[in-house]
Amino acid sequence: MAKQKNNNRSKIPSGYHSDDTGKRITWIEDKTGFNYKDSPVNEPEELKGIIENHIGYMKIPMAIAGPLQLDGHYAKGEFYVPICTLEGTLAISMTRGMYASSVSGGIRVRHVKQELSRAPVFIFDNLDDSIEFMSWVDEHYDDIKKVAESTTQYGKLLRIDQYPVQNYVILDMVLNTGNAAGQNMVTLAAKVACDYIKEQTGCEFILESGFNSDKKASARNMIMGRGHTVLAETTLTHSVMKRILGIHSKDVEKFQQLGPTITTMAGTSGCHLHIANALTAIYLATGQDTACVAENSIGHFQTEPVDHGMKCRLTLPSLTVGTVGGGTRLLPQQQNLELLGCQNGEYSSRKLAEIIGASALALEISLMSAIASDTFAMAHIKYGRR
Amino acid sequence: MAKQKNNNRSKIPSGYHSDDTGKRITWIEDKTGFNYKDSPVNEPEELKGIIENHIGYMKIPMAIAGPLQLDGHYAKGEFYVPICTLEGTLAISMTRGMYASSVSGGIRVRHVKQELSRAPVFIFDNLDDSIEFMSWVDEHYDDIKKVAESTTQYGKLLRIDQYPVQNYVILDMVLNTGNAAGQNMVTLAAKVACDYIKEQTGCEFILESGFNSDKKASARNMIMGRGHTVLAETTLTHSVMKRILGIHSKDVEKFQQLGPTITTMAGTSGCHLHIANALTAIYLATGQDTACVAENSIGHFQTEPVDHGMKCRLTLPSLTVGTVGGGTRLLPQQQNLELLGCQNGEYSSRKLAEIIGASALALEISLMSAIASDTFAMAHIKYGRR
Amino acid sequence: MAKQKNNNRSKIPSGYHSDDTGKRITWIEDKTGFNYKDSPVNEPEELKGIIENHIGYMKIPMAIAGPLQLDGHYAKGEFYVPICTLEGTLAISMTRGMYASSVSGGIRVRHVKQELSRAPVFIFDNLDDSIEFMSWVDEHYDDIKKVAESTTQYGKLLRIDQYPVQNYVILDMVLNTGNAAGQNMVTLAAKVACDYIKEQTGCEFILESGFNSDKKASARNMIMGRGHTVLAETTLTHSVMKRILGIHSKDVEKFQQLGPTITTMAGTSGCHLHIANALTAIYLATGQDTACVAENSIGHFQTEPVDHGMKCRLTLPSLTVGTVGGGTRLLPQQQNLELLGCQNGEYSSRKLAEIIGASALALEISLMSAIASDTFAMAHIKYGRR
Amino acid sequence: MAKQKNNNRSKIPSGYHSDDTGKRITWIEDKTGFNYKDSPVNEPEELKGIIENHIGYMKIPMAIAGPLQLDGHYAKGEFYVPICTLEGTLAISMTRGMYASSVSGGIRVRHVKQELSRAPVFIFDNLDDSIEFMSWVDEHYDDIKKVAESTTQYGKLLRIDQYPVQNYVILDMVLNTGNAAGQNMVTLAAKVACDYIKEQTGCEFILESGFNSDKKASARNMIMGRGHTVLAETTLTHSVMKRILGIHSKDVEKFQQLGPTITTMAGTSGCHLHIANALTAIYLATGQDTACVAENSIGHFQTEPVDHGMKCRLTLPSLTVGTVGGGTRLLPQQQNLELLGCQNGEYSSRKLAEIIGASALALEISLMSAIASDTFAMAHIKYGRR
Repeated sequence: MAKQKNNNRSKIPSGYHSDDTGKRITWIEDKTGFNYKDSPVNEPEELKGIIENHIGYMKIPMAIAGPLQLDGHYAKGEFYVPICTLEGTLAISMTRGMYASSVSGGIRVRHVKQELSRAPVFIFDNLDDSIEFMSWVDEHYDDIKKVAESTTQYGKLLRIDQYPVQNYVILDMVLNTGNAAGQNMVTLAAKVACDYIKEQTGCEFILESGFNSDKKASARNMIMGRGHTVLAETTLTHSVMKRILGIHSKDVEKFQQLGPTITTMAGTSGCHLHIANALTAIYLATGQDTACVAENSIGHFQTEPVDHGMKCRLTLPSLTVGTVGGGTRLLPQQQNLELLGCQNGEYSSRKLAEIIGASALALEISLMSAIASDTFAMAHIKYGRR
Repeated sequence: MAKQKNNNRSKIPSGYHSDDTGKRITWIEDKTGFNYKDSPVNEPEELKGIIENHIGYMKIPMAIAGPLQLDGHYAKGEFYVPICTLEGTLAISMTRGMYASSVSGGIRVRHVKQELSRAPVFIFDNLDDSIEFMSWVDEHYDDIKKVAESTTQYGKLLRIDQYPVQNYVILDMVLNTGNAAGQNMVTLAAKVACDYIKEQTGCEFILESGFNSDKKASARNMIMGRGHTVLAETTLTHSVMKRILGIHSKDVEKFQQLGPTITTMAGTSGCHLHIANALTAIYLATGQDTACVAENSIGHFQTEPVDHGMKCRLTLPSLTVGTVGGGTRLLPQQQNLELLGCQNGEYSSRKLAEIIGASALALEISLMSAIASDTFAMAHIKYGRR
Repeated sequence: MAKQKNNNRSKIPSGYHSDDTGKRITWIEDKTGFNYKDSPVNEPEELKGIIENHIGYMKIPMAIAGPLQLDGHYAKGEFYVPICTLEGTLAISMTRGMYASSVSGGIRVRHVKQELSRAPVFIFDNLDDSIEFMSWVDEHYDDIKKVAESTTQYGKLLRIDQYPVQNYVILDMVLNTGNAAGQNMVTLAAKVACDYIKEQTGCEFILESGFNSDKKASARNMIMGRGHTVLAETTLTHSVMKRILGIHSKDVEKFQQLGPTITTMAGTSGCHLHIANALTAIYLATGQDTACVAENSIGHFQTEPVDHGMKCRLTLPSLTVGTVGGGTRLLPQQQNLELLGCQNGEYSSRKLAEIIGASALALEISLMSAIASDTFAMAHIKYGRR
Repeated sequence: MAKQKNNNRSKIPSGYHSDDTGKRITWIEDKTGFNYKDSPVNEPEELKGIIENHIGYMKIPMAIAGPLQLDGHYAKGEFYVPICTLEGTLAISMTRGMYASSVSGGIRVRHVKQELSRAPVFIFDNLDDSIEFMSWVDEHYDDIKKVAESTTQYGKLLRIDQYPVQNYVILDMVLNTGNAAGQNMVTLAAKVACDYIKEQTGCEFILESGFNSDKKASARNMIMGRGHTVLAETTLTHSVMKRILGIHSKDVEKFQQLGPTITTMAGTSGCHLHIANALTAIYLATGQDTACVAENSIGHFQTEPVDHGMKCRLTLPSLTVGTVGGGTRLLPQQQNLELLGCQNGEYSSRKLAEIIGASALALEISLMSAIASDTFAMAHIKYGRR
């Protein structure tokens, strides 16, 4: 009974009345000590660098999901995650997944690398020139690195991978971009580096070859990653599966068996259910460039029956998120970063990436359960649109 | 000089001061007769079916892009397109592409089909059962159709494609969903159809096989389309290319030559630059489910030199957008649909799809020009973040 | 003991001495009543339509694998499969897989469809023309069908799927090609059909768009199939797994868990081990166009633990094989078709496709076992090159 | 007239009579000084390591294509290429492409790298273990390299790329395999390296993860290459295009415009026409493992109009060929390697790879011409089967 009470207190207050919203704000403060402010707003003058021709603000409904218990390298403890969505069921579904994993001991999550690439391409008249060029680049790597890094205080050039194809040589310039998502940082670094190379060699280039696949999911990014790479795992207990998720191992196994074959056949970017939903919801709430979700919706979701329950795992090779720059500095977005404790700190963008990875795993778990228990359609009828 | 004046009047007033915003609102009214209201807001009670656990609204900066001159099957005339973004340069870049195409005679755009699928999967013990099942489904198509359509007023089952693989048979149920984006509509229709089939045949199913690749880009959707399929084309004149876009045919050709090879190598969903940007910006402004951008970011962008300039084309096989249901009914989103004349009408969702397709083409043209003229990095330094 | 004896008699005699080869020829006759002739050879005059500039014959080592116990729709009973290879271990590995499945009750295999496509493309100046064209094709389907089929006695046009993309309309013409592999049949049918369409509409075309992906694996062919589509399954008993394959369920499950994720990451055409090996070996032996293996190496191989052992399944969506035309009429190739009972009969090409599908499953099972039991490297050291 | 005579002498004698074959043998001797022997044959005893259960030899028709004028890094001068095929038109088509490029000045071809990978996978219980493991491997690289190279005289470990995904860490071990195709070499090196790692760390592995995609085309291999990577280019003159290939720049451009879009849509491994044909034909003739064609049929073929004609380019990222080991030591296969001057020499496998790359380009050029000039169907009717 003590446990029951405890459980109730750990659940976000529900309801659609105005004072329910108030109760949730209070509840967050109760849980985190964080005083959530209603709708701070920026002055138009502050939108330079964010948007041109602005005419106002779009109001996207925002909710809270949690608690999310994390054992990460950068993100540790309990989190309440702000999300924006128009899809009924998403907030309660993510909350259910978070709750199920928290009761089972939480989610272990590891940031494994941070590599943002920009890939200019040099163009040649004949093969001899392109092969000579490749040697030149290898030999002058240190000089190129110095030039590239001259444009940024935090970005570090990690390497340049060369790909010869037809009469082109792609230079895949890979940077650690610190706490910035970093797309503009790598563009600028690549630009000055290529200008330098052109000056020294006389070779012509185009700054964007498409190889880095900015804002597009790709095989390259599934294999090599782009931005942050995050791995997450949790082990659901049998009791949690039955009580909270309404599933049995057997149903899940059936689903796990067919999923990879059919998604391979369909040709999706990895076998997962809907990581775009978690990413979009958190990106919107935390000032990320939401168009990057198209690029970042690559992942591998998998379940494995174990003695005491079921392991669930998610690999996200490409999360191009940051905690400085761009929309992160706007007032309401900044407030959400603060709620997550990601507004500053040496590795705040990695911490954010770990929170996103774990939240996405939680949402995958919940939808997987809905499908395996055949309650998916009914949940959408109850909570969803149309 | 008269022309200069004319041009100025056709350009959106710029500037970051508060009264610049006011000028733009007035300018829209001037151009369209539409009185744009500042930030209408819904009551929490109205968010049922949209979001749970809401704690407020996120304010996403909104801008206007245009004018966009369209010769569509459903969308005809001049449009001013509301967009939401945090990426500096996006609004002026889209506006530049729209302006360039409008001055060149506008964009021709055609909605070619509307097919939303949901693909449940039936599971069998042996091959004989699955082959027998496939015949049963073919023979009982009319009954299944009747059951499926019983759940929806507007949705029409167009066909069921059967895919046998291993011990599974995928039923790809394809519906015309009218003005709704339709994901929930097809889920429900598929659910009752499968319940019926199970009742009649005793065969077990899982409602979501992953084959329809909801919220995920896929080969299936690139080939067959999902939602609306839209094709757009425009012919830029040499004068427009030089004066507005700062490019020469020769530079563009060089870029066109290498693009498809390198994106094929990277493995992106088609050869394009960043259609996710246009889609995200308009989806946010018009109440679409933005997570669908991950699924819809499939496209083919191409340029072809012609005598009088350059043809630019874009094919978007999958736009899962709607004008009724979900977030479209919220006040600020609804207002933007009204601005586009998509708030009602028999084919308003097709009209919206045509506007989105043409806007995406305009944005592709502008970024392609920035890359081909090597002004891409500098534009982001001037207007962008970091 | 009686069983042991029986087993020995059912095993192909081994050894590398000249008279071992003789023993195997005798053994085949003993088993099948088929008198295998040594190296029949065609006269140069008979090579018209097969090769130009010929200078002789390459001798590719040929072996026999089996017995293969089949329960197919077209292929029933025991088969001894001729294979050609230069890869040490392949013949004994395939034989081991066949033997393991035969002892377990054989392989169930089903030919599910036969659809060979050729996809010409029509080119348009603007979108209106292409949309009008699509209607025209739909309306004149019967006429087009008549013209296409006028070029072939056995080929039947099943449908024309239209794909509009950019300023193109792809016509995917799908034919049943009878017992011929059919590539030339569909080329000719498409050619006269397109000439007719051009004559009637004035629209220009290119006969090969690349969409049918002749001689290339593709997403289109994985999804829709090309040529014959075949599904195969067998259930290995625990005893067979332990005694013949040296594996335990647990090892196989571990392998099955990681396979689909990692092949998805690598981006192969389906999750399988090496179906190219089985296809190449049988194609060479039976007069197929071996270059088609590149196109046909698409497949889904999967294991599933069941109470009494392990189910193994293989789906091959694209087998472009035939029993008439091309190299099938040469003497040694024809002899091998006879050994398989595929030299004639209304559905001999479907029978051959079933035999190939089952043989490929057998070879997958054997290599999977070698990997799961960690004997893979050692087997190649013992039997393989270098 | 002198030129005409010269041309005739440079053309392979045609005809299907027995003495035409003799004339061609004489002609080769005349051209190359090489005395081509009729059908040497190995004794069964010599087939150890090549095939088990052998019952004889399959006779595959063999032809000669050429002359092929090469400016390679390893292959220089004029070559006559032995090919095996059952597809009518292939030999004359390849000869036509070789002739057209030779008259235009030959083909420039460059071997750019040689990297064969085998990718075992280690399996972990939790993320902390896998991350610790990755550090261990980095720190002990030199030891692992020593162990791996202890198994081979010629193979050199170039690097180990680590890919963490779910609870797995893939070790992509990349070797230079000298003149061997090297699949068994890398298997053995990986096996002892993994045994060593397991011994030292206690971590479990599976030797084949599927990531290296042996015998399967893949995104990984398109991006990173596997085996030899070769680039080839030639510039056809207007006169050659018209006279020998029957094409005009305009037709080719039309085809070049649509090719990449449509093959991207189909999802083939690169945009090319049929490199599997050239690869299969030469692999069969030179003792390569023909099943590798499925893996190696990745490529980018492209044309570009230039002032004096048309540039044609082909990139082949993955050619797993060798000149020692396996079937290369059999008598008729060895004879063909000798004809190409690839039977020995420090870099004979690279030389062979360059010859194959250039031959594939020649065949692409010829088929492209047949399609662009709409003579494709008729050529197959004249020379082809059925």
